[in-house]
Amino acid sequence: MRDIQSLFIKNILNGTRSNLKECGTAFAASNIALCKYWGKRAVALNLPVNSSLSISLGHLGTHTEIRQGNQDRVMLNGSEMAVNEPFVVRTLEFLDGFRPLLGNTYFEVRTQNNIPTAAGLASSASGFAALVMALNNWAGWELDGQRLSMLARLGSGSAARSIFDGFVQWNAGTNPDGSDSFAEPMAQIWPEFRIGILKISEAQKPIGSREGMNRTVATSELYKSWPAQAEADLATLRTAIDTQDFTTLGKTAEHNALSMHATMMAAWPPLIYLQPDTLEQIHTVQRVRADGLEVYLTIDAGPNIKLLFLEKTQATVAAAFPDVEIIQPFG
Amino acid sequence: MRDIQSLFIKNILNGTRSNLKECGTAFAASNIALCKYWGKRAVALNLPVNSSLSISLGHLGTHTEIRQGNQDRVMLNGSEMAVNEPFVVRTLEFLDGFRPLLGNTYFEVRTQNNIPTAAGLASSASGFAALVMALNNWAGWELDGQRLSMLARLGSGSAARSIFDGFVQWNAGTNPDGSDSFAEPMAQIWPEFRIGILKISEAQKPIGSREGMNRTVATSELYKSWPAQAEADLATLRTAIDTQDFTTLGKTAEHNALSMHATMMAAWPPLIYLQPDTLEQIHTVQRVRADGLEVYLTIDAGPNIKLLFLEKTQATVAAAFPDVEIIQPFG
Repeated sequence: MRDIQSLFIKNILNGTRSNLKECGTAFAASNIALCKYWGKRAVALNLPVNSSLSISLGHLGTHTEIRQGNQDRVMLNGSEMAVNEPFVVRTLEFLDGFRPLLGNTYFEVRTQNNIPTAAGLASSASGFAALVMALNNWAGWELDGQRLSMLARLGSGSAARSIFDGFVQWNAGTNPDGSDSFAEPMAQIWPEFRIGILKISEAQKPIGSREGMNRTVATSELYKSWPAQAEADLATLRTAIDTQDFTTLGKTAEHNALSMHATMMAAWPPLIYLQPDTLEQIHTVQRVRADGLEVYLTIDAGPNIKLLFLEKTQATVAAAFPDVEIIQPFG
Repeated sequence: MRDIQSLFIKNILNGTRSNLKECGTAFAASNIALCKYWGKRAVALNLPVNSSLSISLGHLGTHTEIRQGNQDRVMLNGSEMAVNEPFVVRTLEFLDGFRPLLGNTYFEVRTQNNIPTAAGLASSASGFAALVMALNNWAGWELDGQRLSMLARLGSGSAARSIFDGFVQWNAGTNPDGSDSFAEPMAQIWPEFRIGILKISEAQKPIGSREGMNRTVATSELYKSWPAQAEADLATLRTAIDTQDFTTLGKTAEHNALSMHATMMAAWPPLIYLQPDTLEQIHTVQRVRADGLEVYLTIDAGPNIKLLFLEKTQATVAAAFPDVEIIQPFG
């Protein structure tokens, strides 16, 4: 698997010479998928079964700095992490694929997340995107966003989308070599768009996303219908974004997210990331919507809820969900 | 729709003469599906998309008495019900199909459920089965179980299975006229089999099963994969019952039930019968099973949980779930 990734990286760089500066830096925004990525068609290259579409979180994300070191070191939010921490292991495994292209150097990585840690937002997307962009900056490769997204994808699938801001589509592609599976930004700006975070739990997920999606693909009969739904949802979402049709966007995103969770619930052993409090809030969203408040939800592979709404309902949403943390993706 | 049902009833009776006694009585046991019925291929005749398989609840069910009256009257558990009560409306609509065959008489129906009303167990299955059997007894038709199950099916799909005791299969059939969609008993006896009821809520379901399954079939993309899963699960369950392989039976029943709920969660608007406390108990079942206790669950279109286990673990199950109400289906 590492060999496959190393070869892929070499092909992407395609002979580009490295010209190391003192250090490389980059910022990448986190993103929330409106049409979810769930299921790999090839594990080694993180190639997805279905295309996905996300909205980035503007200034919320990861800032990363990388330079040569005397040994591999990873600092997260100002603290040096032990080399056996899963975060460090995953970061260094990823960087291993780049080492031969950078003179087999040691890496010193400083990562800073400005995503409120209490918000329960995944940081691997912005983390691997920022890392790849920092590498690109450090080595002077000047790769375009398409190539950067393919490299970020190797670290975490959803990181492919965090290379860009705003609405972003990650094309699943069909080539076995992964050369057509990359992200592309959409031009549309929607300043009134709001995202509300409802934190349910900060606990580590008992089953990670990778294992979760592999189990779903392997054991969930209902998953067989997922790719067709995701494809249809993505097309609907693109049109809704084009026409700023919030109702269609919200319905489609919520339907898509709950359908993804449904594919997991139908796996064996059952995979249920939703907690009792998640379900309580899902029922609340359905109730306030029935009362006329236009708010929708999406949920990643975890217990936390993201509300989707427009600026004009912000006060009402905040009243209905007192703990909500509101983000302006285009703010 | 009523005309279609009336014609179907006439065809089933096929000229059989009615010879009314003073009154007709019958008892039918409630049943719990291990492979769920979810989705109709034809609404008017209650023809299911998939075959299903259940276990009856022994002495827990409905006792019904029917006789001629001066007006239509329905007594439930000793109390006369108002004619506009949904229970009465549904009962009389069903009986309307039989009226022309019984001299256009008025009906006086006395129904007694000995299912603990607190248990949250559906009573429509045993209710319509007992009603059909009481009619058969009253009119002296001497119909066989196959025909009785087809008549009961018109009142409530799952009532087809409550005509028989023990493990029962309801064949979906393929004929548009409904003539091959009937229940059949399995011969196997499993005295060690136990069912545990975990009551979560007694509240009326906001969306009834009929509307729920119609919405699922119409809007849930994932539902398209349900019939294939149900067919496979049914075959697996039959073999597990034949060989008394409880592990396979339990896994398959739980997987089947959660997959059914998954098809609903993927409907639009989302259909989520599970309550926060249901989810809490689902997580508890997963946890105690990981600890080595062999207990599985099934959930009908509602919030309440039915545990499946064997006699040998009864004390441990009762300790892990203090509120459980234990039923011996073969007791």
